[in-house]
Amino acid sequence: MSQLRTVSEAICFDGRQITYEHDSAACDCTMRFAAFLPPAAARHPVPALYWLSGLTCTEENFSTKAGAQRCAAALGIALIVPDTSPRGVGLPGEDDLMEVGSGAGFYLNATEAPWNKHYQMYDYVADELVAVVNAELPVDPNAKSISGHSMGGHGAITIGLKNPAAYRAISAFAPIASTLKSAWANTALRAYLGPDLETWRPYDAAWLVEHRPSQHTLMVDQGLADPFLEQLRTDDLKAACEASGQPLQLRFRKGYDHGYYFVSSFIEQHLNFHAAALRSE
Amino acid sequence: MSQLRTVSEAICFDGRQITYEHDSAACDCTMRFAAFLPPAAARHPVPALYWLSGLTCTEENFSTKAGAQRCAAALGIALIVPDTSPRGVGLPGEDDLMEVGSGAGFYLNATEAPWNKHYQMYDYVADELVAVVNAELPVDPNAKSISGHSMGGHGAITIGLKNPAAYRAISAFAPIASTLKSAWANTALRAYLGPDLETWRPYDAAWLVEHRPSQHTLMVDQGLADPFLEQLRTDDLKAACEASGQPLQLRFRKGYDHGYYFVSSFIEQHLNFHAAALRSE
Repeated sequence: MSQLRTVSEAICFDGRQITYEHDSAACDCTMRFAAFLPPAAARHPVPALYWLSGLTCTEENFSTKAGAQRCAAALGIALIVPDTSPRGVGLPGEDDLMEVGSGAGFYLNATEAPWNKHYQMYDYVADELVAVVNAELPVDPNAKSISGHSMGGHGAITIGLKNPAAYRAISAFAPIASTLKSAWANTALRAYLGPDLETWRPYDAAWLVEHRPSQHTLMVDQGLADPFLEQLRTDDLKAACEASGQPLQLRFRKGYDHGYYFVSSFIEQHLNFHAAALRSE
Repeated sequence: MSQLRTVSEAICFDGRQITYEHDSAACDCTMRFAAFLPPAAARHPVPALYWLSGLTCTEENFSTKAGAQRCAAALGIALIVPDTSPRGVGLPGEDDLMEVGSGAGFYLNATEAPWNKHYQMYDYVADELVAVVNAELPVDPNAKSISGHSMGGHGAITIGLKNPAAYRAISAFAPIASTLKSAWANTALRAYLGPDLETWRPYDAAWLVEHRPSQHTLMVDQGLADPFLEQLRTDDLKAACEASGQPLQLRFRKGYDHGYYFVSSFIEQHLNFHAAALRSE
């Protein structure tokens, strides 16, 4: 019997745009994700790009606002978009702050109570979701890549670098490049991991880039009119790449801000970047 | 001094995506609209496509979900997207029904109290908004066209046909093709216009097509998995076009439903259709 329950489904660019929910063991609750299956997936398994969204987002934002299905349909790539946190699990304060709780899972495994019971988003995204998708959807388990936006850019870089054999390519839009130096992330990581900064480092993109660089090129787009540059620490990522030799295609985009109008403008370039890597073996 | 106040602005595909508000004389309240100005508008006036949205929408839905900016930027066309009704004007029951009041202006001039004081969306869209846009934004006042979705498809066809010299092309996605025969529209038109069906006819797309056909081709896309076919009366539009000789490109799309995943899949074809007409004189 399928582990997946279909919440909604629509045709888009002749592919299937589906919202699923399923029982997550990692998060000990029902989790949702969106999947776009390109037309080619009706004929054979296709590569999959995992997209991790930013603070306050659900699995829906990227699917409705990025305009990615057009390119994904043409390139024959599935898009897998998890929600950004457990939902409605009843933890005290789970809806009080933008940076902690619902919509703010930060793609890490919480060790502090009360979050540790449900907020295991690293294990969920890197392992459980991949296993469910590989078992249930027509994707090639050997052709995955990962991207994301803001908090999800942090997630894509950290999960990608910690699992170098799992993903063929990593990219990000306006990533939170250093959780150690971002006030948003500080609030979150203190709640989820406690005060010991040693435990934060494996969830800091710049730290990982410096200590575990990837052989793959990392592609990053950053708007120069982004009001959150101070939170994102792009320069720390750049410095870390220079220090470790991590190949980086960093494009600063004049006039662009932090939102999906920015993401939609460059998503085609990211999908082409991923498609080249996904086709390469 | 400008009549327009900027609510928000972002760069998108190197053009400007702006939300404006202004004081509307027609609706006797503050109205909002979205404008996408393609990169070419920084150099010379550009043609403008007016997009009318469906029930429950604001000026935001099309702008965030249709993915139209990519094509509009490439074609050098401005997108002008009004809100679908007056907002917060304090009429009794204005937020009680999906079909009447906020989000449901139906692009008509209400004659019945209490709606008639503010709900003058026909005059607003066909005259006042056009005058404001022509005066304030870098558009070519002689190159306009009109399109829309669902209730907005009804609006595009009725406003387009009643102002044949004003618009170079008309298209629609899943339009409410007969307000006389749609239960949604019946509820609305009874509230706005009263029980005399004579007064409804000028706001019925199929009736207008039959009595005032256009020399232009009308392009319509309709999803065959649309759950609202009974409300939309596509067959009445088809029959009216056949009766009057109105040229019609009607494309039934297998598997597509009523939402923006459907609109986004075919918006490029509609923009190309409008661009050809807007460039033709």
